Amino acid sequence: MKSSNVFYLVYTLSLLLGLLCVIFVITWSKGYRGGFAWDGSAKMFNWHPVCMVTGLVVIYGNAILVYRLPFTWSSSKLILKLVHATLNLGALSLAVIGLLAAFGFHNKMHIPNLYSMHSWVGFIAVILFGLQWLLGFLCFLLPCTPLWLRAAYRDVHVFFGLCILAMTVASCLSGINEKLIFVLNAPNSTASYKKLPPEAYLANILGVLLLCFSLTIAWMLLKREWQRPNLHASALSDATEPLLTED
Amino acid sequence: MKSSNVFYLVYTLSLLLGLLCVIFVITWSKGYRGGFAWDGSAKMFNWHPVCMVTGLVVIYGNAILVYRLPFTWSSSKLILKLVHATLNLGALSLAVIGLLAAFGFHNKMHIPNLYSMHSWVGFIAVILFGLQWLLGFLCFLLPCTPLWLRAAYRDVHVFFGLCILAMTVASCLSGINEKLIFVLNAPNSTASYKKLPPEAYLANILGVLLLCFSLTIAWMLLKREWQRPNLHASALSDATEPLLTED
Repeated sequence: MKSSNVFYLVYTLSLLLGLLCVIFVITWSKGYRGGFAWDGSAKMFNWHPVCMVTGLVVIYGNAILVYRLPFTWSSSKLILKLVHATLNLGALSLAVIGLLAAFGFHNKMHIPNLYSMHSWVGFIAVILFGLQWLLGFLCFLLPCTPLWLRAAYRDVHVFFGLCILAMTVASCLSGINEKLIFVLNAPNSTASYKKLPPEAYLANILGVLLLCFSLTIAWMLLKREWQRPNLHASALSDATEPLLTED
Repeated sequence: MKSSNVFYLVYTLSLLLGLLCVIFVITWSKGYRGGFAWDGSAKMFNWHPVCMVTGLVVIYGNAILVYRLPFTWSSSKLILKLVHATLNLGALSLAVIGLLAAFGFHNKMHIPNLYSMHSWVGFIAVILFGLQWLLGFLCFLLPCTPLWLRAAYRDVHVFFGLCILAMTVASCLSGINEKLIFVLNAPNSTASYKKLPPEAYLANILGVLLLCFSLTIAWMLLKREWQRPNLHASALSDATEPLLTED
């Protein structure tokens, strides 16, 4: 099979997996956890997993993939950069809403924020993501940034792009685990987590879907022959090209 | 600073972080969770985090790095392959002991195995690791394996090598989170997790150390200029060289 056909097969799979992740997290929050509100209740918390899965994993995963899509290679580099930055800004905004939802619920319930391993990893990932966005904007979209700085930062930006995805997925997995322990092992719950009621199956499968989605994204990102052709030929010349001009 | 000096700086940092991870997980199990035994008690379970952190993260992380160490480049490829396979077999053996420790504790306490998100991710990681080791042995150490198969499998092996590290770290993070919820939020506990007693700090910091360790390993693995020189020149010829002969 032609390499580009394999790419589109993996890309279609990643889109399908991303869609399934969003469907599963909404089904979990709406079907099992009572739906959504913005009032400090558990329904407010439900925005947290939905925003994090949709923003920090699915939209973010698609945002970091923009340069790998062969149908974008005929577009100007500037347009690709703007699409990449805009998608990431959307993902970051959802992450902030997701954090506010968790903090709002905690504050109303007098639960401290940011004490668990899950919250530490998730918060580190969001902070790194915010920094990554800011540095990416300063280095790659501001025309006055020196070319040597742009070239020097490029590898770091690409590396952390992938690491942040790994960290957000790791954070989602620990978050699913934590939430299922809290709600299913609570005194008023009808079935404990260890008995794997349907809700636990659904959320555990969401975790596996997140894992599979991130594997497809990582595979497309890391496979050298699927990189933009001019990158492949000369990473440095591409990194130092003037960014606010057309290719 | 010379690129090879930067490599050795990052490598030294990774060794230090790996050592700290092992010290932290042993301190947690011994200093806060009562130490070790092999009798189905909670002390038997304590082998689980120690084996997983030491084997699946620290030894595994060092095993996948073997080909990146400049001081090994003068050794024959066969010796490098044997060191890589042996370290990985050690890591895999510790993972199996870690699984047995968890299963033994669960069975004695009548707790089902493999129900939580943590256990699903961890088990998938161990299964993939076992498959990876077996396929690596069959493809790269058996002299009768066709060269085309060796070349075709090479990229997949390298890709999953890194993904398995990400999955084992993700699994450790959710495991730390789960264990702290179970032991600190138990009725007989003196301080709940949300009050961040010293044990919670120690274990959360262990999680951050695991994250930092895996970032240094991933950085050394992915940076192209730190790959073995002959790999850099021609991945295919290297992948297809006869494996049971000296270079």
